Amino acid sequence: MSLAEARPPSSAAGEMQSIGRAACAAARRLANATGVEKDAALRGMAHALRANEAAILAENALDLADTKREGANAAFIDRLTLTPKRIEAMAAGIEEIATLADPVGTVIAGWDRPNGLHIERVRTPLGVIGIIYESRPNVTADAGALCLKAGNAAILRGGSDSYRSARAIHRCLVAGLTEAGLPAEAIQMVPTRDRAAVGLMLAGLDGAIDVIVPRGGKSLVGRVQMEARVPVFAHLEGVCHVYVHAAADLAMAKQIVVNAKMRRVGVCGAAETLLVDRAVAGTQLRPLVEALQTAGCAIRGDEATRAAAAGVTPASEADWSTEYLDAVISVKVVDGLDAAIDHIERYGTHHTDAIVTTDAAAAARFLAEVDSAIVLHNASTQFADGGEFGMGAEIGIATGRLHARGPVGVEQLTSFKYRVRGTGQIRP
Amino acid sequence: MSLAEARPPSSAAGEMQSIGRAACAAARRLANATGVEKDAALRGMAHALRANEAAILAENALDLADTKREGANAAFIDRLTLTPKRIEAMAAGIEEIATLADPVGTVIAGWDRPNGLHIERVRTPLGVIGIIYESRPNVTADAGALCLKAGNAAILRGGSDSYRSARAIHRCLVAGLTEAGLPAEAIQMVPTRDRAAVGLMLAGLDGAIDVIVPRGGKSLVGRVQMEARVPVFAHLEGVCHVYVHAAADLAMAKQIVVNAKMRRVGVCGAAETLLVDRAVAGTQLRPLVEALQTAGCAIRGDEATRAAAAGVTPASEADWSTEYLDAVISVKVVDGLDAAIDHIERYGTHHTDAIVTTDAAAAARFLAEVDSAIVLHNASTQFADGGEFGMGAEIGIATGRLHARGPVGVEQLTSFKYRVRGTGQIRP
Repeated sequence: MSLAEARPPSSAAGEMQSIGRAACAAARRLANATGVEKDAALRGMAHALRANEAAILAENALDLADTKREGANAAFIDRLTLTPKRIEAMAAGIEEIATLADPVGTVIAGWDRPNGLHIERVRTPLGVIGIIYESRPNVTADAGALCLKAGNAAILRGGSDSYRSARAIHRCLVAGLTEAGLPAEAIQMVPTRDRAAVGLMLAGLDGAIDVIVPRGGKSLVGRVQMEARVPVFAHLEGVCHVYVHAAADLAMAKQIVVNAKMRRVGVCGAAETLLVDRAVAGTQLRPLVEALQTAGCAIRGDEATRAAAAGVTPASEADWSTEYLDAVISVKVVDGLDAAIDHIERYGTHHTDAIVTTDAAAAARFLAEVDSAIVLHNASTQFADGGEFGMGAEIGIATGRLHARGPVGVEQLTSFKYRVRGTGQIRP
Repeated sequence: MSLAEARPPSSAAGEMQSIGRAACAAARRLANATGVEKDAALRGMAHALRANEAAILAENALDLADTKREGANAAFIDRLTLTPKRIEAMAAGIEEIATLADPVGTVIAGWDRPNGLHIERVRTPLGVIGIIYESRPNVTADAGALCLKAGNAAILRGGSDSYRSARAIHRCLVAGLTEAGLPAEAIQMVPTRDRAAVGLMLAGLDGAIDVIVPRGGKSLVGRVQMEARVPVFAHLEGVCHVYVHAAADLAMAKQIVVNAKMRRVGVCGAAETLLVDRAVAGTQLRPLVEALQTAGCAIRGDEATRAAAAGVTPASEADWSTEYLDAVISVKVVDGLDAAIDHIERYGTHHTDAIVTTDAAAAARFLAEVDSAIVLHNASTQFADGGEFGMGAEIGIATGRLHARGPVGVEQLTSFKYRVRGTGQIRP
């Protein structure tokens, strides 16, 4: 038992409470920080990351040595590994966030009332954002910078495997903050030795935390969604569909299906199920399946798919709701648009779904009736990304229906208030 | 013990599950209902309420008889009582909701990407809204109609004292729905005999409920905020402030202060604390206090206030955070703008706060730095109301920072999705 673990639990809770209080105080200051101040802090962070490359790599080497000793797999070690190139990418990412427009203070809407009151809806920061993540140390920089840009204080809780790397990165963020005259507590890191910290954060730290963003695998997101007592911006799974409609252009359908599945199989916007309209299955099913197979994708198909093409293994009921995140796709023949929409509503995860068709009316119905954060017509599901949407950086993609849905960028990390200007109006 | 109460608890849970499933199915239909359909249903509801006035009053008489037998107080009985005038007001209120623009399908934002993708952010319904209320039977009609207008299914759980009245009103809502060809399950009422129903609703009914709106007193809202596992649109208290700044116009300040406190003392936007700047306390404090006293208000003041005016009782520490909802106000002299903002941030409830001043810079700082849903300059806090904001009807005022803040009208009962139109784009 280490010295840290021997501490009484009340100490951890007390430390977390101070972190919460400090975050609230910092948030109040940040809410009124100018764009110039915040961008100066961001550029200072990028500078500090580059200047401290050697120190960051040294800390990362210690984390890596421990992790390798514990026998972690190659993918885990890759996520944890920092290189000069990855540190430069972090710095450049922060500089890009600095170039985005400051959302805080933007007037979203404004109108006059008959009594002369002028009402405006103005963007404000959300407050304090808790970020719970795993082994990727770069989340420290990305999430901290994005929260700051929107005027929020951040409380970061990373994985214990990457703690030394994350702490070295965090020191650079704090350097940028203090140089710009902003409070160091704007971005705080929770010591990973406090095992109770995650639970305290999910409970909202006595009202200090306004929203939690989990960054990591399904088990982390699932735990956060299950236990959090504050709002969560996240998606658990992206079981995304491409529906090839009766009026689809086959060449376009092939390109989109292969891209949606195979461009990168591990991203949340990767297609997991291909639905092909029975009206064109006779001509299109086999070429679509073969195009996927040529690209290296394994096919799990329903009976009609297995009859149409070779090398297709049977799809089980569970396949229709499986997020493979791998070079595997489930393929089903459906009886028209309604059946396609029904399938997506039944098995999908309300993340991202696409229709390929030249029929504008069918596309309009699909876009209206599929209840997903992102619905596409004649485009790949892999466009599900804040950068591709033109939002700049994103902290993730949300499938909840409240506040933030789809890519969560700087704007989605804000709230709003009503600013009312009068000349002495009283209510009759 | 009645037959209903003798049912095993599993039956109640099963019944609530069916209500949840039916609401989800109805929500899917409502999400694609046209504005014409929804407005026809609303007008049908209004018609049915007027046509069934006698039946509603008869059921209300039964509720009232029981309640009087149990010795309820006059205010409670007043809230429960329906009259022909109140039924007409309900019908007229629903007709007004029918005249509002349909928010669903509205394009909130649209832009083109360099690759030719056209991205739109489109309003969609939230889904299923649970409304938990107390003795006012009219909430049945108001909340049900507002949810329908935004394309949401509603699950209503009213108080047991008004159950028969609410059920009679609910029958009229269902008549309007079915006449317009919309599912009866778009607005469902939970039988009040199920004591476990509120708990099941707060847990989200197995994911069926997207948001809970409590309508009632502080103890109801407090329980809902404490126990809900789904987002809640509500405010617990409105401890609203009027700050009379050093550069305030005295005549305007008097009018605003008296209106903010005394127009209606029981509304959430009523002022509970008056802050007077020390720079003008010598000349303004006494006239302000006397104007309030003349209007019938009791004053609880700090030392400076007690020294300046007669008939002021001492304010305790608890007074600064008390929502009186009565003809009582706490009065404090503060050392300038920063002290006023600090007081509001410390004791306020982030609901509605006002500054009275002729100094534009001071007003701008107050409006920016006071972290409340509604901040006003030179206007009464009693304008905190969806109708006064021009939103039409509201389901309440929210002080949460996510999704809906301030008055919650039809627009705030919606979500959004991204609709992306391409011409075969794939991601490089």
